[in-house]
Amino acid sequence: MQQSPNQPTPGGLVLLPILYMVWSETLIQDQENQAFITFLNQADWLSEEDKKFLREKLSPESPPQRQEMEFWWETITSAIEESKTYPNLTSLGIELLRKAAPEVAYTFPIEQAEKELSDLEKELGIVGKSAALSFKSSHSNISTRYETQVDFDVSALTEILDGQRKPLIDALKTFLATDNFDYIQPDNLETYRNQVLSWCRLLADKGYGAIGYPEEYGGKDDMEAYFTVMETLSYRDLSMVIKFGVQFGLWGMSILSLGTKKHHDKYLKAIGTLELPGCFAMTETNHGSNVKGIETTANYDHQSQTFTIHTPHQDARKEYIGNAAMHGKMATVFAKLLIDGKDYGVSTFVVPLRDEEGNTLPGVKITDCGRKMGLNGVDNGLIAFDQVVVPRENMLDRFSAVDEDGQFQSPIASDNKRFFTMLGTLVGGRIGIPRSALAASKSGLTIAIRYGDRRRQFGPEGGEEIPILNYRMHQRRLIPLLAKTYACHFAMEYVTNRFLQRQEEEMQEIEALAAGMKSYVTWQNTATLQECREACGGKGFLSENRIDALKNDTDVYTTFEGDNTVLMQLVAKSRLSAYKEQFENMNLFTIINYVASKTKTSITEKNPLIIRNTDEDHLLDSEFHLSAFEYRENSILDSGAKRLKRLMDEGMDPFDAVNVSQHHLVNMGQAYIERVILEKFIEKTDQTSDPKIKDVLKKLCDLYALYQLETHKGWYLEQGYMEGVKTKAIRKMVNQLCWEIRKDAVPLVNAFNIPDVCLAAPIAL
Amino acid sequence: MQQSPNQPTPGGLVLLPILYMVWSETLIQDQENQAFITFLNQADWLSEEDKKFLREKLSPESPPQRQEMEFWWETITSAIEESKTYPNLTSLGIELLRKAAPEVAYTFPIEQAEKELSDLEKELGIVGKSAALSFKSSHSNISTRYETQVDFDVSALTEILDGQRKPLIDALKTFLATDNFDYIQPDNLETYRNQVLSWCRLLADKGYGAIGYPEEYGGKDDMEAYFTVMETLSYRDLSMVIKFGVQFGLWGMSILSLGTKKHHDKYLKAIGTLELPGCFAMTETNHGSNVKGIETTANYDHQSQTFTIHTPHQDARKEYIGNAAMHGKMATVFAKLLIDGKDYGVSTFVVPLRDEEGNTLPGVKITDCGRKMGLNGVDNGLIAFDQVVVPRENMLDRFSAVDEDGQFQSPIASDNKRFFTMLGTLVGGRIGIPRSALAASKSGLTIAIRYGDRRRQFGPEGGEEIPILNYRMHQRRLIPLLAKTYACHFAMEYVTNRFLQRQEEEMQEIEALAAGMKSYVTWQNTATLQECREACGGKGFLSENRIDALKNDTDVYTTFEGDNTVLMQLVAKSRLSAYKEQFENMNLFTIINYVASKTKTSITEKNPLIIRNTDEDHLLDSEFHLSAFEYRENSILDSGAKRLKRLMDEGMDPFDAVNVSQHHLVNMGQAYIERVILEKFIEKTDQTSDPKIKDVLKKLCDLYALYQLETHKGWYLEQGYMEGVKTKAIRKMVNQLCWEIRKDAVPLVNAFNIPDVCLAAPIAL
Repeated sequence: MQQSPNQPTPGGLVLLPILYMVWSETLIQDQENQAFITFLNQADWLSEEDKKFLREKLSPESPPQRQEMEFWWETITSAIEESKTYPNLTSLGIELLRKAAPEVAYTFPIEQAEKELSDLEKELGIVGKSAALSFKSSHSNISTRYETQVDFDVSALTEILDGQRKPLIDALKTFLATDNFDYIQPDNLETYRNQVLSWCRLLADKGYGAIGYPEEYGGKDDMEAYFTVMETLSYRDLSMVIKFGVQFGLWGMSILSLGTKKHHDKYLKAIGTLELPGCFAMTETNHGSNVKGIETTANYDHQSQTFTIHTPHQDARKEYIGNAAMHGKMATVFAKLLIDGKDYGVSTFVVPLRDEEGNTLPGVKITDCGRKMGLNGVDNGLIAFDQVVVPRENMLDRFSAVDEDGQFQSPIASDNKRFFTMLGTLVGGRIGIPRSALAASKSGLTIAIRYGDRRRQFGPEGGEEIPILNYRMHQRRLIPLLAKTYACHFAMEYVTNRFLQRQEEEMQEIEALAAGMKSYVTWQNTATLQECREACGGKGFLSENRIDALKNDTDVYTTFEGDNTVLMQLVAKSRLSAYKEQFENMNLFTIINYVASKTKTSITEKNPLIIRNTDEDHLLDSEFHLSAFEYRENSILDSGAKRLKRLMDEGMDPFDAVNVSQHHLVNMGQAYIERVILEKFIEKTDQTSDPKIKDVLKKLCDLYALYQLETHKGWYLEQGYMEGVKTKAIRKMVNQLCWEIRKDAVPLVNAFNIPDVCLAAPIAL
Repeated sequence: MQQSPNQPTPGGLVLLPILYMVWSETLIQDQENQAFITFLNQADWLSEEDKKFLREKLSPESPPQRQEMEFWWETITSAIEESKTYPNLTSLGIELLRKAAPEVAYTFPIEQAEKELSDLEKELGIVGKSAALSFKSSHSNISTRYETQVDFDVSALTEILDGQRKPLIDALKTFLATDNFDYIQPDNLETYRNQVLSWCRLLADKGYGAIGYPEEYGGKDDMEAYFTVMETLSYRDLSMVIKFGVQFGLWGMSILSLGTKKHHDKYLKAIGTLELPGCFAMTETNHGSNVKGIETTANYDHQSQTFTIHTPHQDARKEYIGNAAMHGKMATVFAKLLIDGKDYGVSTFVVPLRDEEGNTLPGVKITDCGRKMGLNGVDNGLIAFDQVVVPRENMLDRFSAVDEDGQFQSPIASDNKRFFTMLGTLVGGRIGIPRSALAASKSGLTIAIRYGDRRRQFGPEGGEEIPILNYRMHQRRLIPLLAKTYACHFAMEYVTNRFLQRQEEEMQEIEALAAGMKSYVTWQNTATLQECREACGGKGFLSENRIDALKNDTDVYTTFEGDNTVLMQLVAKSRLSAYKEQFENMNLFTIINYVASKTKTSITEKNPLIIRNTDEDHLLDSEFHLSAFEYRENSILDSGAKRLKRLMDEGMDPFDAVNVSQHHLVNMGQAYIERVILEKFIEKTDQTSDPKIKDVLKKLCDLYALYQLETHKGWYLEQGYMEGVKTKAIRKMVNQLCWEIRKDAVPLVNAFNIPDVCLAAPIAL
């Protein structure tokens, strides 16, 4: 049996809260013990009885028993007055004394005790007021009370996001929410791939597949609708999206864009109905980014007027080809055209792969790519051709042709230009993919933010646990990503419109925009889903909550349709030249003509009053944000151009010079894209008429801007564009905006309006 | 038929290289055309015939035909002299004229032509020397020639990495390389899980499972060996590692650490042989990080001397429990001990789950967690207890017990302290997991770096394609991660040793070190594998190359054994107090006793000569690196302590104050860990005797240090610790070190000495 606790002496009562506090944290080791001994030796206002009691209770050798601690706790908490504020533990001790022995308290040297004990508290590192609070049964704090509020009309925001395409989006969402599209386990590859094919057939039957094709081929000639469909489908299984994109986008659009009427008439209708599943066979094992280097050959035979398609070696096989492993009947094959042994560069050919029964045709060898990180419902494969003969009309002859006399013909004289014009027609993929990525980010954020709003963990001493989204770190992890997703949404809307309304002379700019946004958004998506996974903890690791699939299926988005790092360099090259029509092929030594006209503004912006300005009005001023983004964009462009020129002037090989500047070029591309995104977000916010929605969009826009400024603060400080006092103020403002937007976060993800059946994650429903 | 190209006039020859260059890039639009017209109007040294020819060839309306362009190319390249250097395109044009018409050249106004044409070249933005190079059949550049070199003894570096554990590591690697451990497809969960169990049995049979247990229970009492085994196993299937850790670590070690001799005697041997598979049932659906809040109860019945284990509601089920869904026979269950209705806090109990045949026992309900992002070979499950009765001796009674009289007993009076002492015994998991993560990073880097060394893509005009690891961006993506992995390796070696040689009074520091390294290394691992995936492009997405599994299996490492964000805050709290024994339970209002002693040094370090010092010697000086890391560590600690104290002094609720400072606290933890890592890396480098290995380790160590300084440059600039000129010099040095280490990169990953069979990725073999 434990011995029962002794009643504290009067002086013991005064020190009881301190005693309890140090023992509850087992603080008493040498350092603290020394502080206590010094204190006890000096405190002449304590009686010998007090000192005896305290020495006993403070001895590190005989810590108080559990029962004694409980007794102390009860003694303290029963004396405390909930309505009172105690500035330190001593004042609490004196309250104890007053309640237990009012007669002693009357003569007790309170002032002296308070002074000496406050020194002791300081010595022990105790923050008295806060420590005293912990004895109260509950105490009010902001972190606990804070919660979701719906301050704006969520469906009105959905309408702004969906725009004119709302009817199409709503109809497709309703269709996707039927049990036709119920998710299936990815365990068995064959089952999964066949299921995905069936889903695509359902979509084709409803006319979604052909929607971008001309009306005479069953379509609606509506490319915007096609992009909208790609994005909306992405709220469901992502293998379905990619299979859809391979069939109706890559395969169908290659026929449409690279072929001529005879090909359209022959294939397009059957492609749009999925009667004719096909592939887009461009990439080879040894040549991905560098398409120009592909080695598959198409050798023209004058006699028979045929091409012989051939794979010269293993590593020249077509690889990662969607629809190849199981379902594809034909393919658009990229190959080097040879006439009489002379190489006329990359051209495209329609090559049959399988017969009606699905058997591969003679000379065609297809190998399954097997299991992948994600997108396992897509049947990617390797294709090798062993002298496969196709007739002359199978050449897609819009940009290069062989005439009846066996002569090469092309409307574009330059091989380079022809090649990049051909690829340029496929730029649509660089719009479809980031829009699909955006949808995946929206799904991930909806899941993580709803979960963060309801998941509770930890809380103040004695209080209830609080939603994890009330934690500042959790906000910092998710809220800026929400702002970025909104920002990218409006920017993709802009890029889509530019693409749809494109004029020939704008193509270089639009290609750069699409390439840059594809990189930016897909990187952003990978980062967002990774953060969502971690923010949902163990629940985020369970496949049932779908962050798994969202992340893994979209992971390759940063690679396909152009590796992001390569694309960002292309964007930079395009920025270095104001006037090139096709930018992918630019040799940098002919394009360094950038004139640093815009950076002249920097001098006025480096006004000392501005570089140190930390006024809230200034920090939340969109003009400040945009000019800071523009400054970065132009400075990096300017210094990059000068650097390249200097290196080459100094005699460095141009290839080396570009290589040395690669990191600079990638930053150049990013800075450009970020400026475009911010500009479009500001415009969208300005155009919004509903004041409450405008208000929340302005906050998101500010957060996007300031979060990026914080991310790049090292650069701005290096440039002298801001001083430390300002970057620190920006950090605080980012925290503040995260805190403010947190209450809007659930309504903001609800505005994405993703059907619960599609979202499917139990933690988010 | 195309018309055959006309022979250029003499003046046309001089301009031919410019003509070719602008057309090959289809430069000629309004702006350029204007430049040409102006030039032609002025150039009185050209004949009318020349001007006619040039006007014709420069017309944007009639671009040259393909055949003409080819003819120009041949004309130019056949005249060029490979050994000569041409400062611009004009000098090349004059060479053409000399070769074709020496008599005309003799009287040609060369000087005037050169002057006016060089203006034209400038106007067109052409860098002449580089442009002239492109006509040569090949030109030397550094990016092409650079390659892997083996400058040091790879196996000697392996010995340094493996240290004294080399024999154990080698033996286990040899065993793992047998076909017993061949990877299997993860398609079927049941098959995969049973396979993983079989693998663990093979390991148990060899004595690896019990290796950390006392000898009387079949072990070798060698915890270091246990950690080494966990790390080495991680070169193979990671589900096996986690299953192994659940069985022999979590389940076995909980019996060893929380139980007493009677439990050891009864269970430990059977656990070590895997005769008795078991679980560690701590986490509940509603309580993960906040273990103290678990709701499972263990109600003591005095009459029968038994505990009734009960799950009060769905969300109090044990969740994510490894070994639960299929194989576990028993579990260590964490539950709140109730005696006569009074709550004595969290205790642990051995609870049987399944009978010999594997059927769940009455009252036990187990639900499969199903498919996960990774680790699908581990059978995680949910466990619910419906009034399950276990005898008194099933309580693991090292820290809390119920005696024969039904009285609660504990050697530790404070509930808080008992709880955290109990959890503290499990700190080993926070060493095992980051070591496993490191192995995964090493596998990922070996695959990505070997691939980067052999994968070729793009190259200089007319030259062969170059290894992608020769690209500066690719180096920037992978080489700093390689440096970090080496850095973390040596730091984990240090933390392991500290743990093995721990004294009671060091426990708080060691717990903080382990918690911090667990977070740092596992975050690092996630980032590394994500980068490796992307750096390998499409190949990285194929499961056959294993980055998929490496990434997804280890993704949850940032969550389990303590959520990283939570752990980093614990590290910070520990740093805020110099003397607390157990830090997880600290209330911040009793620990703000940090004295900013170290930050005094900052004044001397902010010497203007130092903050602007960009000398190479200084930038590569380890003392500079370490003092910069220490400055950051101490400044953040100091400002964090002051900030918390100020907020609480101002009357902010302590919980709110901590919440407001959360981001600061996480940075505090990271800055501490980074300093430790750097310090240990520097020590290791200094201790290395082999001069060539020392040299390469020094480079890696420098890169680690400078890369982190670059990462945090915003902070250093804000503080005035460095000026922009210095941070820019650091960036350049990072690029330079990446370039230098690139040639060592393959030998450096080879030194990890991962068996090819384990690595398995076709792209890396």
